[in-house]
Amino acid sequence: MPAIDAVDFFYLSMPRVEDIGDGSQDALLVRVAAGGEFGWGECEASPLVSIASFVCPLSHSACHPLADSVLGQSLNDPGDIDRIGRLVRARSQDVLQAAHTFAGIDMALWDLMGKRLGEPVWRLLGFTSAAPKLPYASRLFGDSPAETLAKANEVRALGYRAAKFGWGPFGAGSVADDVDHLHAAREGLGPDGILLIDAGTIWVEDVERAALVLPALNEVFATWLEEPFVTGAHGAYAALAERSGRVKLAGGEGSHNLYMAKQMIDDAKISFVQIDAGRVGISISKEIADYAHARGVTYVNHTFTSNLALSASLQPYAGYADATLCEYPVDIKPVARAITVDSILPDTSGMIRVPDAPGLGVTVDPMLWGPYLQDIEIKAGGRTLYRTPGLG
Amino acid sequence: MPAIDAVDFFYLSMPRVEDIGDGSQDALLVRVAAGGEFGWGECEASPLVSIASFVCPLSHSACHPLADSVLGQSLNDPGDIDRIGRLVRARSQDVLQAAHTFAGIDMALWDLMGKRLGEPVWRLLGFTSAAPKLPYASRLFGDSPAETLAKANEVRALGYRAAKFGWGPFGAGSVADDVDHLHAAREGLGPDGILLIDAGTIWVEDVERAALVLPALNEVFATWLEEPFVTGAHGAYAALAERSGRVKLAGGEGSHNLYMAKQMIDDAKISFVQIDAGRVGISISKEIADYAHARGVTYVNHTFTSNLALSASLQPYAGYADATLCEYPVDIKPVARAITVDSILPDTSGMIRVPDAPGLGVTVDPMLWGPYLQDIEIKAGGRTLYRTPGLG
Repeated sequence: MPAIDAVDFFYLSMPRVEDIGDGSQDALLVRVAAGGEFGWGECEASPLVSIASFVCPLSHSACHPLADSVLGQSLNDPGDIDRIGRLVRARSQDVLQAAHTFAGIDMALWDLMGKRLGEPVWRLLGFTSAAPKLPYASRLFGDSPAETLAKANEVRALGYRAAKFGWGPFGAGSVADDVDHLHAAREGLGPDGILLIDAGTIWVEDVERAALVLPALNEVFATWLEEPFVTGAHGAYAALAERSGRVKLAGGEGSHNLYMAKQMIDDAKISFVQIDAGRVGISISKEIADYAHARGVTYVNHTFTSNLALSASLQPYAGYADATLCEYPVDIKPVARAITVDSILPDTSGMIRVPDAPGLGVTVDPMLWGPYLQDIEIKAGGRTLYRTPGLG
Repeated sequence: MPAIDAVDFFYLSMPRVEDIGDGSQDALLVRVAAGGEFGWGECEASPLVSIASFVCPLSHSACHPLADSVLGQSLNDPGDIDRIGRLVRARSQDVLQAAHTFAGIDMALWDLMGKRLGEPVWRLLGFTSAAPKLPYASRLFGDSPAETLAKANEVRALGYRAAKFGWGPFGAGSVADDVDHLHAAREGLGPDGILLIDAGTIWVEDVERAALVLPALNEVFATWLEEPFVTGAHGAYAALAERSGRVKLAGGEGSHNLYMAKQMIDDAKISFVQIDAGRVGISISKEIADYAHARGVTYVNHTFTSNLALSASLQPYAGYADATLCEYPVDIKPVARAITVDSILPDTSGMIRVPDAPGLGVTVDPMLWGPYLQDIEIKAGGRTLYRTPGLG
């Protein structure tokens, strides 16, 4: 009866984090130990806040630190991961950060379970084969249309057949600027590339402002418009979806539980549901993938960080052959590269495959982190609640 | 042009926090200073996690510490509070905890603004008068039906005309036990008291289990069944609402933004929407109260802590005379009592009135906190990000 002996958090960061939409500038890694085996996960979250949610003092019966529901739990089979997740959601329901924190723990539990059983996670999730995915290069818009053009040229030169441009100045200035960026992206990518556009919630819930870019999005044959609005603004999404023509809406990365994702599918009328396993965990991501599949909505991973997070993000929909696209971060920072020894690279046909190796199938080597590991200390009443563990 | 000069957090706690559903065992207070004036607020949140979200290092452009969007902001009129809230939601959208943290800051900003303008917050929110509210005594179920009976007797003896019983063993054991507790509560409260029942999300989304207590709820003339399911399980709520007969559903305290509350009203088919100003702030609470009012759904405050939180929770619906009920915590712990000098007490007719005094209308005195103030320290790379401020 192996039990969870330890859960350790490691906060890695670039020495200087810039105020840009690049989520690979820091990372929160989770190592779970049970019965002499280890698993690794990564929270897509504010690292310090998530660490605090694991070690915080008890506030009341629905506001437990996550440690209370994870440490010491038996871990015999995948059903235990589900059981622990339910426990966390019940006992930490008033710790708002809990979902982001448990996502990385859930990932690490699956990694450990896969290693123990000698199976890749996607097989433990019930898939019998893993379909190749077409990676789309995920990049920020340039500061000017000329810079966006240069970035799109570069993406094409690197051999990508699909690319997403997002954040940066898009949507924040004039519609004419947005239109110029869109045409620059299409020009650089070439006529045949799959072009995806990410508005990064810039219009909050302003349907009319978003609608002003629809003609240009259709002119440049964008496949989707991602996150015109914030997660939860279902009415705005549904209203825009009715008017969007050939361009479909994508969204869902802001979901931090199963209900939110289901509502984005059912009520916001998105055609692509983008889920970050680092925010909801692999278990819930798989439930969302199944739900989307049954409703003809295409599941896409959301990831902008390490190869560990990338592998985790691919597991929940690995076997759904009709969900062909895969977000593939191209510009990730050295800290994100240093997390794993191996990289998940496109094969000769330009496709990505989820690792066919036990667990998440990538090797985490703390010896690579030296310059990035942050020394964090949290004390209450003189007692140390958290201190960055040694790498020994 | 007064600007926000400082935001200080104070974590208060009982020396020993028990694993029970009593949310008054600790508190996170927020003091905002601007132009020589002060305002106080209280987050209904895990204190350490919320403090971390204010001081955490930057992760990327959508994952800022809240401090980045609050400190130094100009604060000339109530519109600035709204502007700062939007800024926080945009720049900290990937800090999941942000909503709970900003709730207390928003409250403190309103308190400060009201003190500066010499007006109670409810008047600044647009109400011209404040209607009296019927307080319901909010209590935990006893461990046995006999204990619940004793508690209900006590509530009646204290003169309360309405009472809510929740959490404790309810829903976790057999249906027969639940039924016994319900009859005990009605017996103790007497035939005329308004009886409210809180299931504390115990059934997650299990409609059939919840439905088993509906006959008894109707027999004891319960006015509402609160939180049979978790926030977001709209389908389960709506299905139960169709079968609940005279008993109506209440919920919404788990909402941490406007969208979630609207969905509880529109999709979950609740008849009472319960909003905790310590989780969404006064500004958003007012928007929810307006939305509910326009749709014939009754707004009720959710609060289980101090008189500061109680005052804040009453402001957003103070002027809606048809929303007569008010949650009134009876059993709060000494730490919650110590937060304010004054208490909001029922008048001779048994009604509660929101203070008719500038700001939130209660006086916070840190000199009362001595034994409860927690000494917290958060360091990154040897640099102190947070240290409990002195009470001087």
